[in-house]
Amino acid sequence: MTHEHYMKIALELAIQGLGRVRPNPMVGAVIVNENKIIGKGYHEKFGEPHAEINALRSCVDEVKGATLYVTLEPCCHYGKTPPCTEAIIRSGIKRVVIGTRDPNPLVSGKGIEILKTQGIEVVEAILQEECMMVNRFFFHHMKMKMPYVAMKYAMTADGKIATKTGESKWISGEGSRRYVQQLRRQYQGIMVGIGTVIKDNPLLTYKADLNQSPIRIICDSQLRMPLTSQIAETAKHIKTYVVFSKELSETRTGLSKRKALERKGFCLLDVPAKAGHLDLSLAFRALGALGIQSVLVEGGSTLNEAVIRKGLAQYLYTFIGSKILGGHEALTPIGGNGVESMSDARALDLVKIKKIEEDVLLEYRFRKETGQCLLAL
Amino acid sequence: MTHEHYMKIALELAIQGLGRVRPNPMVGAVIVNENKIIGKGYHEKFGEPHAEINALRSCVDEVKGATLYVTLEPCCHYGKTPPCTEAIIRSGIKRVVIGTRDPNPLVSGKGIEILKTQGIEVVEAILQEECMMVNRFFFHHMKMKMPYVAMKYAMTADGKIATKTGESKWISGEGSRRYVQQLRRQYQGIMVGIGTVIKDNPLLTYKADLNQSPIRIICDSQLRMPLTSQIAETAKHIKTYVVFSKELSETRTGLSKRKALERKGFCLLDVPAKAGHLDLSLAFRALGALGIQSVLVEGGSTLNEAVIRKGLAQYLYTFIGSKILGGHEALTPIGGNGVESMSDARALDLVKIKKIEEDVLLEYRFRKETGQCLLAL
Repeated sequence: MTHEHYMKIALELAIQGLGRVRPNPMVGAVIVNENKIIGKGYHEKFGEPHAEINALRSCVDEVKGATLYVTLEPCCHYGKTPPCTEAIIRSGIKRVVIGTRDPNPLVSGKGIEILKTQGIEVVEAILQEECMMVNRFFFHHMKMKMPYVAMKYAMTADGKIATKTGESKWISGEGSRRYVQQLRRQYQGIMVGIGTVIKDNPLLTYKADLNQSPIRIICDSQLRMPLTSQIAETAKHIKTYVVFSKELSETRTGLSKRKALERKGFCLLDVPAKAGHLDLSLAFRALGALGIQSVLVEGGSTLNEAVIRKGLAQYLYTFIGSKILGGHEALTPIGGNGVESMSDARALDLVKIKKIEEDVLLEYRFRKETGQCLLAL
Repeated sequence: MTHEHYMKIALELAIQGLGRVRPNPMVGAVIVNENKIIGKGYHEKFGEPHAEINALRSCVDEVKGATLYVTLEPCCHYGKTPPCTEAIIRSGIKRVVIGTRDPNPLVSGKGIEILKTQGIEVVEAILQEECMMVNRFFFHHMKMKMPYVAMKYAMTADGKIATKTGESKWISGEGSRRYVQQLRRQYQGIMVGIGTVIKDNPLLTYKADLNQSPIRIICDSQLRMPLTSQIAETAKHIKTYVVFSKELSETRTGLSKRKALERKGFCLLDVPAKAGHLDLSLAFRALGALGIQSVLVEGGSTLNEAVIRKGLAQYLYTFIGSKILGGHEALTPIGGNGVESMSDARALDLVKIKKIEEDVLLEYRFRKETGQCLLAL
């Protein structure tokens, strides 16, 4: 069997940690001796043992002389748990096959060095792209100090997200809505504008398990958050940021509004604004500094346009419902000013086409523009 | 081998007549003797022999006692060619297997009757749906006295057909535009509004072979057609209808404009209008009466909305380009007033998803509304 074969198994193990290991990366490990898998493990929960340790512990047979396959370079520092390199060295493992290096420039390659100095053979970059992709949020955040931002909207076959009177229940079908629930489990944060909160009064949770709900982030430059909204009622239990205008925090009304929201359990985050519009680049930078690695923007027309205009989004989920609404005044997914010329269109790369019951989901990556320094993920 | 097996071969033969047999249906025929195909044929060109005759003529071996598979009930009347039933009877064919009956109520079942009275065994309704589908325009027109209407548009991933300044070159890629060329070959007519003619000055032809170009139909209630447009310059060679308001034909300006257009080679068709808007139901009825079996609407936002609002379209081709334009004022594929409530949305059935280079093509059938008498095709 090839290295790729075992690495694939390690990858499948890794993704079992989905939603439970954040902000850690998902990691899987397989131990192989004489072409036989003798141990398997993955990082199951934040704060608990890493994949390598779980794999070693799962072994009944002799580990001495075996090969360890692990999707990410083993750590060599004390964090919540002791360094994995030590456990590997102690175990008598002879060879370590690694998917990809640790993206943290402070430790990248160090785990490998330590293993090598102990006479352990190290093979690198097996299924590297896949191993990076599975933790693309983690990698992106480590490199860019910003969250990986995906946008999601549902529109009709004629490009509308609501009727001209604002009705939008439902543009897409139940299957698509279930899919969105799964997305909410994958992303660490979920962002909407205050307009959506006022209009729809949503909860913005992962319904099946509130513990896996994303952090809610509300762009609310003027602190219009209703204290009686479902989000306000649950802000003590589900972490919720209100991002608002710095100017406001210097006024008296601003201060009193802010206090009221803090009493409700909200975390307040002030960023500079211009003509009432938050500086979203700074907002995402601040969220990145707070350790938020990924954000799913479920905005309305206006927030979506601002995020795209600033080039802040990496990925797009477009759900297309099998319906026609029509109407020059009906809202479309990306509103605002938009571009004037076709040559200024934002280019997308089509990544995935999926039929979900009567809907279609198209997934795109935003194409990197020249000079824009985005991680190639 | 089953009846279905041979009928499938006959169907594949039938579609080889695409674009060359209009207004006749496409028909294919296979002659089988002792499990061996001894003859094949299809209706190749309007005015030339029918499929059955071509199949009989292709036989080298003995036809006596053989089975004829034919996608459509053989004709029993003198048209451009003598009745096929006579040739079948003369040939000594023992059994005729038919895909579907002739949709013309005046002759439907008569061909079958004649064969039976001559002692020929007749098997009916083999792959009936497929045999109707291949000629759905012909069937629809025969039953409804209206053309089968399909709509086509290209929009961005955020539902725009142009930037806010009206630029639209190109929303979709080359592959999609080639696909549209193929559609133009399939539909007998192509319809746009005069706005599109004035803005884009298009030719609206099937470029690879002008002889297979569709009939052009321009909705132009006020006869604004520019005499110097590409369409006007070619109206003598490619049949082109200008559909205009009946009121106008009673005025002096109307009469002189009409004369000028007729001199250019246009066919003029007046229909009642209300507040400057043509009665499209009557327009399509008139086009149906003129023998036009199918129309591809390549309208702008306004024409598209009028066609959909009146429930006149049966099919939809949505090309989605991998681009984002944004803009509240950018045009969307279906404009006009649109519906107010989600419950009034026009429901579609998703029929096909196709990736065309970087674009996605979604094909839908308009769902029949209660009380609406559309052919189940």
